[in-house]
Amino acid sequence: MNAEIISVGTELLLGEILNTDAQFLARRLSETGIDVYYQTVVGDNRQRLSESVRCALERADIVIASGGLGPTPDDLTKEVLSECMGEELVMHEESLEEIKGYFRAIGHEMAENNKKQAMMPKNAIILKNNNGTAPGAIIEKNGKIVIMLPGPPNELEPMFNESVLPYLKSKSEYILYSRVLQIFGMGEAMVASKLEDMMNEYENPTVAPYAKTAGVRLRITAKCKSEEEGIRLTEPVEKKIKEILGDVVYGYGDETIQEALVRLLAEKGLTISAAESCTGGCFAGMITDVAGASGVLNESVVTYANSAKMKYLGVREDTLARFGAVSEQTAKEMAEGIRKAARADIGIGITGIAGPGGASADKPVGLVYIGAASKSGTTVKRITLKGNREKIRHQACVYALDAARRAVLDMAQTDC
Amino acid sequence: MNAEIISVGTELLLGEILNTDAQFLARRLSETGIDVYYQTVVGDNRQRLSESVRCALERADIVIASGGLGPTPDDLTKEVLSECMGEELVMHEESLEEIKGYFRAIGHEMAENNKKQAMMPKNAIILKNNNGTAPGAIIEKNGKIVIMLPGPPNELEPMFNESVLPYLKSKSEYILYSRVLQIFGMGEAMVASKLEDMMNEYENPTVAPYAKTAGVRLRITAKCKSEEEGIRLTEPVEKKIKEILGDVVYGYGDETIQEALVRLLAEKGLTISAAESCTGGCFAGMITDVAGASGVLNESVVTYANSAKMKYLGVREDTLARFGAVSEQTAKEMAEGIRKAARADIGIGITGIAGPGGASADKPVGLVYIGAASKSGTTVKRITLKGNREKIRHQACVYALDAARRAVLDMAQTDC
Repeated sequence: MNAEIISVGTELLLGEILNTDAQFLARRLSETGIDVYYQTVVGDNRQRLSESVRCALERADIVIASGGLGPTPDDLTKEVLSECMGEELVMHEESLEEIKGYFRAIGHEMAENNKKQAMMPKNAIILKNNNGTAPGAIIEKNGKIVIMLPGPPNELEPMFNESVLPYLKSKSEYILYSRVLQIFGMGEAMVASKLEDMMNEYENPTVAPYAKTAGVRLRITAKCKSEEEGIRLTEPVEKKIKEILGDVVYGYGDETIQEALVRLLAEKGLTISAAESCTGGCFAGMITDVAGASGVLNESVVTYANSAKMKYLGVREDTLARFGAVSEQTAKEMAEGIRKAARADIGIGITGIAGPGGASADKPVGLVYIGAASKSGTTVKRITLKGNREKIRHQACVYALDAARRAVLDMAQTDC
Repeated sequence: MNAEIISVGTELLLGEILNTDAQFLARRLSETGIDVYYQTVVGDNRQRLSESVRCALERADIVIASGGLGPTPDDLTKEVLSECMGEELVMHEESLEEIKGYFRAIGHEMAENNKKQAMMPKNAIILKNNNGTAPGAIIEKNGKIVIMLPGPPNELEPMFNESVLPYLKSKSEYILYSRVLQIFGMGEAMVASKLEDMMNEYENPTVAPYAKTAGVRLRITAKCKSEEEGIRLTEPVEKKIKEILGDVVYGYGDETIQEALVRLLAEKGLTISAAESCTGGCFAGMITDVAGASGVLNESVVTYANSAKMKYLGVREDTLARFGAVSEQTAKEMAEGIRKAARADIGIGITGIAGPGGASADKPVGLVYIGAASKSGTTVKRITLKGNREKIRHQACVYALDAARRAVLDMAQTDC
């Protein structure tokens, strides 16, 4: 089966918003084993939308349209797609009740034009919207499937996961069962070379790495009849991969490295604190983005100025004078200083040159030292990052998150 | 003139990357007065790419393709587009020298297949790539224009701005000259109602507001023959808008609120420091994302735990016990405490409930207090934000940046 994605909305054509819906749908479809050959963006225009839909119906088995299900006259998706499929729109009483209930819950009166959102194609499967007013719909006719979803990502994504995905899976004889391993600290090429035999020889499940901004995703995909069969097929492969790659595997599925770190710290009842120079708060910001971070982080400091490094962390003036603020010695004293000051189990010190200014002959833009202190001792990693200020800062944070994760693992080993 | 955007790349169809190129191109074209009716995404597949290009050439004056200019066999854009336009590919010696020079500069040897990147359509305008190896090209033939750009945003964006934009402007008898005002602290609907007469009556320049995630962009657009004429037409309108809207206008063009704040602090020689609870370092992170932030921020703290609020900021135990960590009183003491501890001109205190946990009957998720202390005194703003944890934290930071900006403006007024 193959699908085509049509994103409807003039705001997309004007570049006012990013088309995250198309990425979400494309990724989910690809994970489900459905090929996507085209994505189209078209505005709130009856004729052009109609032409795009007719073109898509000629070349794809499934057409998924997002957006244009709103209550205003320029929301045309339902009208146009139903017409293309030869279906009339009728009032769907259940949806009308849902919409009325939605407005009651937020204490607003329903506007008359919201009734339009309950007009649905006659012979369609109606998809409930638990996060907004516009229901979705699936029309199945003449060997084609047309799916309509609301545009806002917080409505589209749960509707797709809860209603569309089970529907699509029921249409297929087999399912694709995937396990994703998250990797940091080894490049895509090295991962591929270590798993070369597996990638070349395995047919079911298959193993494929994908590079991310920071790190690598490794997907193990089994073609199978049931989830149980999928687990049975992928589990031994996952185990073998972890044996080969070791502790560069930090997490599973969509887990970020900060989520993996917070999970690990919480499991072991440990706390963390950081002293940040070039990352200026972003490291603490990434940790505290994880719900439940308050259990593992009590305090953290941004010590941009040398005076702040001395005051909060006890970095010695002599160290700063002899080696500079961006040095292995300063990173070490920062990590140890914040660990002591915050009485944390893990102390992280980050100092570097994010640019564009501040570089010298022996200390280029992108040079970053990351110190990680625990009761097992202190390690300092020296890295040289490429890219602009934003990218260098973000990557420095990810390396620091990984350094923290390794410090926790080392502590656990020492305890054994 | 109207244009169609074709994004080429299987990684887009698989949902592995977000199509930021399409948004960038769409926005720039819209600002230049060129309509976009369709955007298409197609994979690295000769037949489907060719069909998409032929279809686009039928319905658009300009076709802009991005991606697929790399050195590997699956990079097909140049071959396919040149074929569609009836142009042959020939070696472009100047581009070959550029590519060789690029590799010399980074100290790598050029691979043989990089030569492919210097094969260009015979009668084309060649666009130099200052940030990578793939040159771009413009083919003009039979009343149609085909533009090919490299996929990586850090190559595509400067190439578009430096080479394509001047080319497109030269094709048009008139230009669109735009000024953008950045607004925070007034909703889109209120901005529109205050500027209603202007928006309805003005024909040249036109005035239009656009909502952003946080704040509003207001675009003044003049249709004119030259930049000078554009300035002459828009300047009085801009002045009038600023009179009507007052100090909610914080900046110009693409300037973010953190850039405006750092600029303002630097102009006045002031420093800032923050004590963050629910935003957990993100506020300092946003400020330090601006190059030159080290001139205005020496230190900043994340005080998640109550003990940290007392230790670093001198928040009184009694205040925390009587009013709670999320309260006007605590925000005030945090702002004043960090101002004193860091010897900063402006002290910001942020405390709130980012969720999903931590709420109580009278303190819902999204409740945030922002304190701003300066020598003129301390103000505390109470806001209730909607959305998930990430959105609440981000919005809280933006409100705090605005509070800091207003504190600087108030100080300046006090000085008069």
